[in-house]
Amino acid sequence: MASQVLRILGRPGLYANYSIFRHVCSRSMSSNITTSFAVTYKTHGDPKKVLEGKELPLPSKIKDNEVLVKMLMAPINPADINMIEGTYMIKPPLPAVVGNEGVCEIVDVGSNVKSLKVGDWALPVDSGSGTWQTYAVYEEKGLLQIANDIPAISAATIAVNPCTAYRMMKDFVTLEPGDVVIQNGANSAVGQAVIQLAAAWGLRTVNIVRNRPDIDDLVATLKSQGATHVVTQEFCRTPEMKTLMKELDKPPKLGLNCVGGKAATELLRNLANNGYMVTYGGMSREPVTVPTGVFIFKSLKLHGFWMSQWNKENVNSPQRTEMLTELCDLARQSKLLAPISDLNPIRSFENAVSKSLQGFSNKQILVMDD
Amino acid sequence: MASQVLRILGRPGLYANYSIFRHVCSRSMSSNITTSFAVTYKTHGDPKKVLEGKELPLPSKIKDNEVLVKMLMAPINPADINMIEGTYMIKPPLPAVVGNEGVCEIVDVGSNVKSLKVGDWALPVDSGSGTWQTYAVYEEKGLLQIANDIPAISAATIAVNPCTAYRMMKDFVTLEPGDVVIQNGANSAVGQAVIQLAAAWGLRTVNIVRNRPDIDDLVATLKSQGATHVVTQEFCRTPEMKTLMKELDKPPKLGLNCVGGKAATELLRNLANNGYMVTYGGMSREPVTVPTGVFIFKSLKLHGFWMSQWNKENVNSPQRTEMLTELCDLARQSKLLAPISDLNPIRSFENAVSKSLQGFSNKQILVMDD
Repeated sequence: MASQVLRILGRPGLYANYSIFRHVCSRSMSSNITTSFAVTYKTHGDPKKVLEGKELPLPSKIKDNEVLVKMLMAPINPADINMIEGTYMIKPPLPAVVGNEGVCEIVDVGSNVKSLKVGDWALPVDSGSGTWQTYAVYEEKGLLQIANDIPAISAATIAVNPCTAYRMMKDFVTLEPGDVVIQNGANSAVGQAVIQLAAAWGLRTVNIVRNRPDIDDLVATLKSQGATHVVTQEFCRTPEMKTLMKELDKPPKLGLNCVGGKAATELLRNLANNGYMVTYGGMSREPVTVPTGVFIFKSLKLHGFWMSQWNKENVNSPQRTEMLTELCDLARQSKLLAPISDLNPIRSFENAVSKSLQGFSNKQILVMDD
Repeated sequence: MASQVLRILGRPGLYANYSIFRHVCSRSMSSNITTSFAVTYKTHGDPKKVLEGKELPLPSKIKDNEVLVKMLMAPINPADINMIEGTYMIKPPLPAVVGNEGVCEIVDVGSNVKSLKVGDWALPVDSGSGTWQTYAVYEEKGLLQIANDIPAISAATIAVNPCTAYRMMKDFVTLEPGDVVIQNGANSAVGQAVIQLAAAWGLRTVNIVRNRPDIDDLVATLKSQGATHVVTQEFCRTPEMKTLMKELDKPPKLGLNCVGGKAATELLRNLANNGYMVTYGGMSREPVTVPTGVFIFKSLKLHGFWMSQWNKENVNSPQRTEMLTELCDLARQSKLLAPISDLNPIRSFENAVSKSLQGFSNKQILVMDD
């Protein structure tokens, strides 16, 4: 299958166990590609049971407004798991190919396609487009071109989590250098993006994580990403936490909540007057509970945020392009690294999914290296 | 004590049991006024126990930047009760005179006073200024002039509740005629102001109240104020509520919550995507609880609102003048009536406070008719 160019990932050493080859395909080559290996499901249910790898036929010729792409990498995100389970807000018609996020390389373009050319990299515009497969045909308008000189793993994981972090820090309250952001679930993929973006923008972060056996390693990792403080949930209820918050001089203007329950109340307790808490997840499966007194007297503002909804409202908005450009620039400068990840060949998806369902696991990435 | 002019209240018939006299005072007269009858408290506690009526001495001469006022009327608000109990955010130094809201008439002005003249009506600028007394001395900057051609009871009750209703409908989401506002505690003073302002602005309201023995009368009263729908909390969980909401054609963009607990969740359930719920009270003493799914997928926005804080940030802002002018205009046109009230001579404050502590009671107003 054509010549292969070795592409070194942007994070030297971290993924040394796995070599990634970027396929350089030519237009003529595309005719050889007749099927796509895809991770599919016919019914909603336990991801360990309902997923099935299949060779799906590709059309023999693409239409004028279509492109043929080779998927390069796709992450396993919580939204993918929920979508398989049938508990996610978006439910693609079944049978479906799994996958909301990922980066692809353009292999062939239809005669009317203007914005993409062979060799470009692109991201799917919409959620639920089925990125867990080796090849796919998209309409031109279904893809958004992205820099192809950043690590593939960064491109594959930039659309959901770093974009969520970016928007939450841009769209609710104006943050100036030195301002403080407090977040729970700080070691989530979004949390790690928050830490790095905040550091790049001169913001300080207070990062709350659950206690765990390797807590010291985790603290060191998050600090190496630029975290100002990393504390456990248990620490939050000690007098030392009060001291720490006091020493910041100014209370956090922004809290980011992906846990809910007590972990959300913890953020509220520490927010400044007129502070915002943005909720983008509910890992504890407990609701967000707001004591009325603090709510009113601190004039708190609590917003739910869903990246898919924002994308829907900003399909081709200048804000979206500006955001992706800035995030790619930061990735290029190694100021925004992909989350700590395990790379898995797509054909080992079962193992990758199992690992993603374990507590305290790294981000799992599927690699399409056929 | 000088001549007295009978002033008829703006709501004919409603207060026929109580005649209100407005004192027309002259500058020379002010020298006769040596004490103020005031409702005071030395310690925080049960309002039925800690309140004490006292004759407080007035200064023999006011300073150049001060005014002497005769209080005309002051309402008993929940904030007053909480302040006496010591559970309110603002705690004036003790001993203190009770009262956050009320209207006064200027009786004498210091030589440097520019914005107020004898005969003007005014409202205290700040919370906790002690309006439950017959006379008081204020700095000029502590008072805000207000129209004196509206009913005294409207002026006395305009600063807290109608202003809260006004701001909550202006500052969070842009409402167009035909849009829907949903609220709980709809028969509260704020709730009644919401209904009337919404009607004046061409908005529709869905008003949730607790069931009570005289529910039919309550529904009739709120409808006469302009309520589109009045329903009980129990009704909210029936299929008929769904039908009612569907027939509105568009879901509410704004929910107003002064109850908390399940009554707040009821509002969230019915809000439009991107809808706002503003919390300004917690009568149930239960927190606001937000299920994560609806929070994120509907991109809900929950804000706490505290009028005192807004006032603090808008002491002399054009927005405050504009708001009071519009509210006075509506009061003058009888489009904004004072809440259904019982009028009580200030010397019967004990009885008035007791009544205000009973469930389902009318708003209690103290009248200074010495």
